[in-house]
Amino acid sequence: MHQEEHASATDNRRTIEHATHIRVRYADTDQMGLVYYGKYFEYFEVARTEMLRAFGLPYAEIERAGYGLPVRDASARYFRGATYDDLLRITARMKAEATTRLEISYTVHLDATNELVAEGATTLVFVSKATGRPTKPPEIYRQALEECTKVLKC
Amino acid sequence: MHQEEHASATDNRRTIEHATHIRVRYADTDQMGLVYYGKYFEYFEVARTEMLRAFGLPYAEIERAGYGLPVRDASARYFRGATYDDLLRITARMKAEATTRLEISYTVHLDATNELVAEGATTLVFVSKATGRPTKPPEIYRQALEECTKVLKC
Amino acid sequence: MHQEEHASATDNRRTIEHATHIRVRYADTDQMGLVYYGKYFEYFEVARTEMLRAFGLPYAEIERAGYGLPVRDASARYFRGATYDDLLRITARMKAEATTRLEISYTVHLDATNELVAEGATTLVFVSKATGRPTKPPEIYRQALEECTKVLKC
Amino acid sequence: MHQEEHASATDNRRTIEHATHIRVRYADTDQMGLVYYGKYFEYFEVARTEMLRAFGLPYAEIERAGYGLPVRDASARYFRGATYDDLLRITARMKAEATTRLEISYTVHLDATNELVAEGATTLVFVSKATGRPTKPPEIYRQALEECTKVLKC
Repeated sequence: MHQEEHASATDNRRTIEHATHIRVRYADTDQMGLVYYGKYFEYFEVARTEMLRAFGLPYAEIERAGYGLPVRDASARYFRGATYDDLLRITARMKAEATTRLEISYTVHLDATNELVAEGATTLVFVSKATGRPTKPPEIYRQALEECTKVLKC
Repeated sequence: MHQEEHASATDNRRTIEHATHIRVRYADTDQMGLVYYGKYFEYFEVARTEMLRAFGLPYAEIERAGYGLPVRDASARYFRGATYDDLLRITARMKAEATTRLEISYTVHLDATNELVAEGATTLVFVSKATGRPTKPPEIYRQALEECTKVLKC
Repeated sequence: MHQEEHASATDNRRTIEHATHIRVRYADTDQMGLVYYGKYFEYFEVARTEMLRAFGLPYAEIERAGYGLPVRDASARYFRGATYDDLLRITARMKAEATTRLEISYTVHLDATNELVAEGATTLVFVSKATGRPTKPPEIYRQALEECTKVLKC
Repeated sequence: MHQEEHASATDNRRTIEHATHIRVRYADTDQMGLVYYGKYFEYFEVARTEMLRAFGLPYAEIERAGYGLPVRDASARYFRGATYDDLLRITARMKAEATTRLEISYTVHLDATNELVAEGATTLVFVSKATGRPTKPPEIYRQALEECTKVLKC
């Protein structure tokens, strides 16, 4: 398991990978004593935000550049419950490609034992805020991706 | 306890009152088996939205008219826990006055037994979206309030 | 679209269907001005709770009988955003079978226009609270299902 | 402002203080583009959990010792909105006393500019899980507090 950003390469289909740690809040649990199933989609959000930041592109900048990145589909599978105060490691992965559709997958592990808690996937789509329609990724995104590839970090 | 909008009058300081029912979701509970303390502020939001709607003014219209209504302060006291699937009755109350500051108080009861679960208060302030500054309530709000007073519903 | 519980039958694979209405809270929206993508899983929870209640079995009773019903997987597809104060109609559907795995699908419509907002699916598994292991559904569940089938409501 | 645990002393009424950083999630914002007012109570939870951990007592241990620590009252005042991706610094403060009622106050600052975003307070009460009634703090809590005082960390 990789705790930081990482790129595994087969030439032009490189994979970006980044791990984020989240501690389970009391608010995240339900009366079953486990993290509520819908909460994992919020953890996925944090993980992809931090992955984008790690390779040079805070999501907030994408919005400032006039783009939105709404979620088109999302899924999760749950293998074991996480409990209050657990330290979770959420790893997000995506292809280092500047495409309109952004497919990101996730794994959630208990950091202490490395046990798999859940896995998931989301598809996001670049849209222009002006038109509301799908569009190519913004120039800043493509540059960040290219820069990242050059320095071999992804 | 009044289940619907209601006005008790001492001439120009009338009180508007409105009760809304909310069923506790699994997502609302925490591992203590009770509704998470921060969740009540969301219940208060629902109750004040329904109170405004009941006397003729959906909050969405206030926003469309160019106004915001941010919360300035909020508080709650908790008397007993509410549990999953409980039907709660949230009663919101405010003075029928068109002032910049909107002071709303709330009580939360278990509907089945009438037991008091919690009480709370919020202060909201009308702001102009253009300037971001506090302002008099919009004309539509003052008219709704006046209309409401005329027909003696509040 | 059916607003209430409903059963379409091809002998022993009957489908139960139930619609629940949920009004979008301010808390449910994000800065994109739309309902946050993870929130729909909470709406799904409400819809399946109300479906179970509609055919005679509140979920709380399942827990009291010593069973849990954790979610094993969940997914959603988003077709258009829902906004603050929208009235949504969430329809849940499942086969009227007393199996260990409970597969429920959902559709979310804007009630005013009947436009499709999202669809989704969850798999839940009956587990014994004592052992934590998957198990046959509780007797009360099988009886409720049988009763429901007899009276032709499902 | 202190970024770490800190104790200011006037003999036996010492104050414990601890700061925690939280980055605002997209899920935390609402359509006003700001953090939803009820969300701050979740931030307060994180801050007090980390404060207790910092002086040697994870809250999870309090529960394992057979105690609960429900919130009796909570309040917040909002001075300016926080936005998506802001790094917030939540400082929690309490008296270093082993009393049944735990009064904790909070301030929320934008970490980058040190601007005050919000302040708040909560009262929690030690209860025995066995009886559900208020009780003296558990021995482990009193020892942690005493230890902490000895080594002058609080």
